[in-house]
Amino acid sequence: MSSRKELKPSNSLYPTPVILVTSVDETGRPNIITLAWAGNLCSAPPQVGISIAPLRYSNNLIREGKEFVVNIPTSDILRETDYCGIVSGKNTDKFKDTKLTPMKAAKVKPPMIKECPVSIECKVKNIVPLGSHDLFIGEVVNLEVDENVLSQRNNIDFKKLKAITWSPLTRNYYSVGKTLGSFGFSRKK
Amino acid sequence: MSSRKELKPSNSLYPTPVILVTSVDETGRPNIITLAWAGNLCSAPPQVGISIAPLRYSNNLIREGKEFVVNIPTSDILRETDYCGIVSGKNTDKFKDTKLTPMKAAKVKPPMIKECPVSIECKVKNIVPLGSHDLFIGEVVNLEVDENVLSQRNNIDFKKLKAITWSPLTRNYYSVGKTLGSFGFSRKK
Repeated sequence: MSSRKELKPSNSLYPTPVILVTSVDETGRPNIITLAWAGNLCSAPPQVGISIAPLRYSNNLIREGKEFVVNIPTSDILRETDYCGIVSGKNTDKFKDTKLTPMKAAKVKPPMIKECPVSIECKVKNIVPLGSHDLFIGEVVNLEVDENVLSQRNNIDFKKLKAITWSPLTRNYYSVGKTLGSFGFSRKK
Repeated sequence: MSSRKELKPSNSLYPTPVILVTSVDETGRPNIITLAWAGNLCSAPPQVGISIAPLRYSNNLIREGKEFVVNIPTSDILRETDYCGIVSGKNTDKFKDTKLTPMKAAKVKPPMIKECPVSIECKVKNIVPLGSHDLFIGEVVNLEVDENVLSQRNNIDFKKLKAITWSPLTRNYYSVGKTLGSFGFSRKK
């Protein structure tokens, strides 16, 4: 017999993605911010949402520049990923600090991060103020994937992505584990 | 030396949560929909976002009832979770079909799902039409956690949650694996 305990309302949906969002200032100087409050919002046109507190340096860069790139890290760069979430880029160059490598994106000014196998280039379509955070809705204008994680048929090898996930309930980073099934498997008899 | 391949823009942010969202019609009849496009949007006030296509039965139920519960499944109910994502509740009772157990929520009309260790009760604050999907922004009004996953100090035992994650790149469900680190670990020397 299970029973429930009521806890203080908080933002506790899990597991969440962990992403590195890049932006640039008006001189082209790039910044990186780590986010876990992010997700897919719409298929057509493809749109993603990222939430950033108004005081964060990246909030203003993306508000002004109207572009960002969602770079998805691997567990190989977990330390760099954590670092970009706890330090402000206002007074330091996080690319230099972490030795992560900027790569020119095809359709937007902010750079891709070479060490991230997937980069999603976005243009800001809408900003929704919510309180402690603003939701930036970005339309996906390009998707670039490292060839090392693609098969010859351009299928993604998910194991090679070494994705990181996060839970606000525990404030821990986790690996993504084994494949449990494919969408629609319950339909099969 | 890595190089990049440009793929068609799509909604490919990963890994995403997998959640069971409950709603009720005006007679109190409950429904369940499985979603992967969902996330935390704001801390204060705590808000979550869920995206649902306009044609889905739950879209109308939540639009009318203005309440929903985010129930987070375990891998023990992966088959039921997959089923609730591929069948419409318009003509069938998914609670009966899956034998999942509705439990009365404290602050909203839609039920919690007993087999889900965490339930987040939400009231709709805003609906943002985006195209193929509408974004429902819900304010968290209550958080209920199964006592079986809590320690005596009310800490969550994440292993017991057996969370499911998803990637739109592969359309597969994955387990959440091992703990990689805690937020802020890179600060320590």
